[in-house]
Amino acid sequence: MPDPVLVRSVADLRAVVHVWRREGLRVALVPTMGALHEGHLSLVRLARMHGERVVASLFVNPKQFSAHEDLDRYPRDEAGDAAKLGQAGCDLLFAPPASEIYPPGFATAVTVSGVSDDLEGAMRPHFFGGVATVVTKLLLQCLPDAAVFGEKDYQQLLMIRRLVRDLDIPVAVVAGPTVREGDGLAMSSRNAYLSANERSAATQMNVILKRAVADLEYGGDIAAIERDATMALDEAGFNPIDYVAVRDAGDLSVLGPRVDRPARILAAAWLGKTRLIDNFSVLPRAVAGNDA
Amino acid sequence: MPDPVLVRSVADLRAVVHVWRREGLRVALVPTMGALHEGHLSLVRLARMHGERVVASLFVNPKQFSAHEDLDRYPRDEAGDAAKLGQAGCDLLFAPPASEIYPPGFATAVTVSGVSDDLEGAMRPHFFGGVATVVTKLLLQCLPDAAVFGEKDYQQLLMIRRLVRDLDIPVAVVAGPTVREGDGLAMSSRNAYLSANERSAATQMNVILKRAVADLEYGGDIAAIERDATMALDEAGFNPIDYVAVRDAGDLSVLGPRVDRPARILAAAWLGKTRLIDNFSVLPRAVAGNDA
Repeated sequence: MPDPVLVRSVADLRAVVHVWRREGLRVALVPTMGALHEGHLSLVRLARMHGERVVASLFVNPKQFSAHEDLDRYPRDEAGDAAKLGQAGCDLLFAPPASEIYPPGFATAVTVSGVSDDLEGAMRPHFFGGVATVVTKLLLQCLPDAAVFGEKDYQQLLMIRRLVRDLDIPVAVVAGPTVREGDGLAMSSRNAYLSANERSAATQMNVILKRAVADLEYGGDIAAIERDATMALDEAGFNPIDYVAVRDAGDLSVLGPRVDRPARILAAAWLGKTRLIDNFSVLPRAVAGNDA
Repeated sequence: MPDPVLVRSVADLRAVVHVWRREGLRVALVPTMGALHEGHLSLVRLARMHGERVVASLFVNPKQFSAHEDLDRYPRDEAGDAAKLGQAGCDLLFAPPASEIYPPGFATAVTVSGVSDDLEGAMRPHFFGGVATVVTKLLLQCLPDAAVFGEKDYQQLLMIRRLVRDLDIPVAVVAGPTVREGDGLAMSSRNAYLSANERSAATQMNVILKRAVADLEYGGDIAAIERDATMALDEAGFNPIDYVAVRDAGDLSVLGPRVDRPARILAAAWLGKTRLIDNFSVLPRAVAGNDA
């Protein structure tokens, strides 16, 4: 398949989408920061199921990086990304310069409290404000029928669901499941940073979390399992471990002492200079336990 | 003319607007807090020049009132408002309950820095955050081609221009000039609070500001004129005087020592328990003065 059409301005993006709309075609958007891997491409294929036309955005959003974070070394390969997007069925690539997204005088921020306060929000204070603002902009620039986000960034997904509902943005938010390497490591653009040794240790994150899921679904104590998983990550070489947390699947509120409703286990930890995150669904036991 | 069609839910609002859109009709929105006077109705008539169909919203937004402010005594007369709107050519009245705008779990805020930090922003800390959030919601609920706001709330108008641009909301912001009583008092729903004595003093605000405009346009010193106008308001019985300020007309940045570009004089002051605001355009002298 050919590369997608490339546009760099909001005006050009809207012009193309406007023509599609007049033809009665539904449009689905996949926002990305580039450095695309199979996880992103699965979102593009999912988007095709929600729209006859698929737009991908490629924008490494400076507002969601802190000064000490990896904005400058974040991997960039626009030509390679465009080729992969074309193969996956993307029709239009919106790759704006920063000046198109944040022109001089830009002064507006979108913030979401509650679901984004804790976990990633606590570790990366600028992160969710930056994500909420740029996602709002991308959704309003494109005004798609559907927008697809990966479950890999689970807290971000919940925050986006919240802000779309709260601001009445007329778009359906679609979640795409996490795509994994053969050994279960969640695909991430940041995996490219890992040394060979780190890469081999990295797989332990999903192994440890899946073991925790089994223990939780068997009715285990949440606090004990969080503690055990943290120790196991430590033994596997992760340092520091930002968090291992079992939370309500819908709003990330704290649960306890056992999982009694749909939940999610989420973790973030470092291998050398690379920060990895992952998460899994945890379902309550179908049959009530005998806790007497 | 008949009363406008009344809807109370976003879904019903969108259903009506959707039909109009399919008919190729342009839609203009006039957000209000009700208690309508000739100033609002002039905005409705202006809206008709920007759309074949006009929607007015009536929502007394709790998020833009502080605990000590006049939310509870803010005047309400929906039936009277609907009749006036029909006379002015409004087709649809969107009058949602608070639960439709802020359902349980609502957690998102839109904030605009810079233009909204000072003046009203300094005096009423919750005000502009509340306005920015609800205006974003109303614009995205209705998705009109144009939205009309009064120059009476000049700083609010500038903030809305900024947020519409920054969030890429696809709407044209149209400004409507302030409508005045025979003696020049700017029309306001809050004028209904004034006693007979206060009402007769109130006219001095526009008289004093217009004198200041003349002095500024003659090349007078901004700081001296702000001081003189403040003293004149004090003598007329205003107490306290929140501010009298001469600022850049586009971004409200501080000017000085004289007006050398399009500017605005803005004032806020109290008569008894009623807070009045007003503002006027100040244009730089067409011919450069001889400041030697």
